[in-house]
Amino acid sequence: MTTVALIGAGNLATHLYKAFRNTEDIEVVQVYSRSELGSVSDDMNNRCIHDLQRLTTADIYIIAVSDDAIAEVSKQFPFTDRLVVHTSGSMPMEVIERTNKAGVFYPLQSFSKEKEVDFQQIPLCIEAENEGDLKVLEKLGRAISPKVFHINSAQRKVIHLSAVFVNNFTNHLYHIGSEICKENNIPFEILHPLIEETAKKIQTMNPKEAQTGPARRSDQKTINSQLQQLSNKSQKEIYELMTRSIIALYGREKL
Amino acid sequence: MTTVALIGAGNLATHLYKAFRNTEDIEVVQVYSRSELGSVSDDMNNRCIHDLQRLTTADIYIIAVSDDAIAEVSKQFPFTDRLVVHTSGSMPMEVIERTNKAGVFYPLQSFSKEKEVDFQQIPLCIEAENEGDLKVLEKLGRAISPKVFHINSAQRKVIHLSAVFVNNFTNHLYHIGSEICKENNIPFEILHPLIEETAKKIQTMNPKEAQTGPARRSDQKTINSQLQQLSNKSQKEIYELMTRSIIALYGREKL
Repeated sequence: MTTVALIGAGNLATHLYKAFRNTEDIEVVQVYSRSELGSVSDDMNNRCIHDLQRLTTADIYIIAVSDDAIAEVSKQFPFTDRLVVHTSGSMPMEVIERTNKAGVFYPLQSFSKEKEVDFQQIPLCIEAENEGDLKVLEKLGRAISPKVFHINSAQRKVIHLSAVFVNNFTNHLYHIGSEICKENNIPFEILHPLIEETAKKIQTMNPKEAQTGPARRSDQKTINSQLQQLSNKSQKEIYELMTRSIIALYGREKL
Repeated sequence: MTTVALIGAGNLATHLYKAFRNTEDIEVVQVYSRSELGSVSDDMNNRCIHDLQRLTTADIYIIAVSDDAIAEVSKQFPFTDRLVVHTSGSMPMEVIERTNKAGVFYPLQSFSKEKEVDFQQIPLCIEAENEGDLKVLEKLGRAISPKVFHINSAQRKVIHLSAVFVNNFTNHLYHIGSEICKENNIPFEILHPLIEETAKKIQTMNPKEAQTGPARRSDQKTINSQLQQLSNKSQKEIYELMTRSIIALYGREKL
């Protein structure tokens, strides 16, 4: 049995708690939360402490707090030489205070409070200062997902950057699409199947091959007409820049 | 039984042919193709003609050719006063020569030759000059999909513009994400679950609420560090513009 203490009680910590509880091999012995827990399960509540000095013995301490708070929290632990990991995509492993053995346990997914999560589908990026600890994290990861990857801090930084493009920026394009629909009294739902298909398509084709549309065809007539349709300055700028970037990529390549 | 003649034998025409063939109520009586058909089914090949003058009687003539060719093709029909529809998202209904009765039958999806299509999931946007023809198109649509919408040419133009953002531009972001991974020897597949979740999330939350990431948090430290990571000029410009647009949207709103 591997014992885990969770530091933090937000979105990610709550989803991890549920995932670990459903395994045979992992036991969450404590959950640290600064404030009272909101609507979580009784057994999560029962394990809750509000003082880091009360942290008990565990095989792995998982810090699931905001990026800015990781370093500070890791300084306050009342023990040394234990395995302490954070769960952040953008912070290096070294942000963890050197009095303990550092590692990273980064689930590559975007979590919302309301939405149930299937960890079986989530890539887990792990890293540790030494081989033994990496094995411990590998075992922890495999208990909840078959997709465990050894990713160092430099690689994780690249993945996080890439995720900003494919997740945050993509979501902003969805927002713009929904605004354009709303202004014209068209239900945005009509675009849901297209959005889902766009995301699914690249699982079997690479995105460069999957591209279609006016910019891909260098169809200047449609491009000009769509630019005229846009009255919002920021939307217009994004349309122009993305179109220019697509045209530059395909250039005069034959369709 | 409703009879249909398909004008065109590309991606969309082939997918439509298959969808109609699987119904009880629709019969495709002819398929017009400029050139010999490639690898299509025998029964599609048997119905093929290469001369518009040989078009036979049908209840609906569906033009599924490139946007630029619709007007020209519709001028060459050897009949008048019949229902002729095009399948384009960006062309107005009026592009069809006035000697026949015009309509639109626009499946709101992106089609690839290699990928099978489930029309049950595809919104069909229909429009017609008169009520009777709209009913004919409604029946045609319902035979292959429960999602039939009455959308006029102005609305369709808006939908097409919105689709450029959520489909073409989004796919370009996937391309950039994959390039960033490739340059750093990280398999892009590691981001597939995140991409799929991003697309799924907005089916239950609106995109503005679903947003996360450094720009959403106005996290200038991470933003600067990611800008320094980017060496490609076009990627940098897109990062800057999207980030600025997201920050402007949320401003100092509390997280």
